[in-house]
Amino acid sequence: MEALKERILKDGKCLEGGILKVDSFINHQMDPVLMKRVADEFARRFASAGADKIITIEASGIAPAIMTGYVMGLPVVFAKKKKPVTMEGMLSTEVYSFTKRRTYDICVSGEFVCPGDRLLFIDDFLANGNAAKGIADLARQAGAELAGMGFIIEKEFQHGGKMLRDMGFRVESLAVIESLGNCRITFKQ
Amino acid sequence: MEALKERILKDGKCLEGGILKVDSFINHQMDPVLMKRVADEFARRFASAGADKIITIEASGIAPAIMTGYVMGLPVVFAKKKKPVTMEGMLSTEVYSFTKRRTYDICVSGEFVCPGDRLLFIDDFLANGNAAKGIADLARQAGAELAGMGFIIEKEFQHGGKMLRDMGFRVESLAVIESLGNCRITFKQ
Repeated sequence: MEALKERILKDGKCLEGGILKVDSFINHQMDPVLMKRVADEFARRFASAGADKIITIEASGIAPAIMTGYVMGLPVVFAKKKKPVTMEGMLSTEVYSFTKRRTYDICVSGEFVCPGDRLLFIDDFLANGNAAKGIADLARQAGAELAGMGFIIEKEFQHGGKMLRDMGFRVESLAVIESLGNCRITFKQ
Repeated sequence: MEALKERILKDGKCLEGGILKVDSFINHQMDPVLMKRVADEFARRFASAGADKIITIEASGIAPAIMTGYVMGLPVVFAKKKKPVTMEGMLSTEVYSFTKRRTYDICVSGEFVCPGDRLLFIDDFLANGNAAKGIADLARQAGAELAGMGFIIEKEFQHGGKMLRDMGFRVESLAVIESLGNCRITFKQ
């Protein structure tokens, strides 16, 4: 998605340690017009995936997910990042974050992820893929299927995309970054 | 907003202790079409407020905020609910939650809330108004102004709306609940 790549080059900041800061337009301050274009592109790519619900993870997945849900006419569920007070009817799994070097729980109500659901997972970043694996585990627990996974930005050099594709998931990333070496953003051609 | 009230009566669940569960269409599973209608209504009510940025709080404020930003053509910033690792350039304030009976921090980058900004605060619920007061404090720290505050649902019996209006803020709530007594939802006429 060329408009997205241009925006990343213009407003993204590359920091030491493979970190790409896009907090001026994607995950702290957000550009709703760009989010709508991102949603249009996800809708185009997943038009024939047969999804009947969007799933994401709070907080920065919510904006692209609600826009994609709006464009595709599908409900949107967001997994929460902490264990609820009561686990009654809740599905929960552990996710290890390489960035934060700690484990956190994600959970979702079993009322909203149901047997037979075909989920489309939408998130802002794909790095090592652990959050996506967590979503796949919640889907498995619920007896739901994953119709696909869509990410605004994939950091290919952190190998989550390869892992998820090798697991058989359909993964679509709107901008794939090959390298952030020398604090320079290089997209995959 | 009649469509919203009808939806609350149809799908909202009233629990003991003044709790209204709307997690099947607003704050866990979300209906993007309803969110768009909510955004259209906020845009109509705040058309002449002169806002130049939307602000909200993660996580359940993000969906109505990004939709309102899209309809109004404004950028959207979400305050985060934890202290960042580095406070450099961050504005932070404490919020007391009556529901959870504990204090939490909300913070936002000073890069995205700036002197002279006219912020429109959008959130899902207005109860005691402490989160809104926190946003007002962040705006004050930044030298920004609040052009208005818009909530999907106001629980009038928890008095946050009165407090904020007495403080001089323009508050617009799309559904105002007068009482949840006897686990029955009564709207203000």
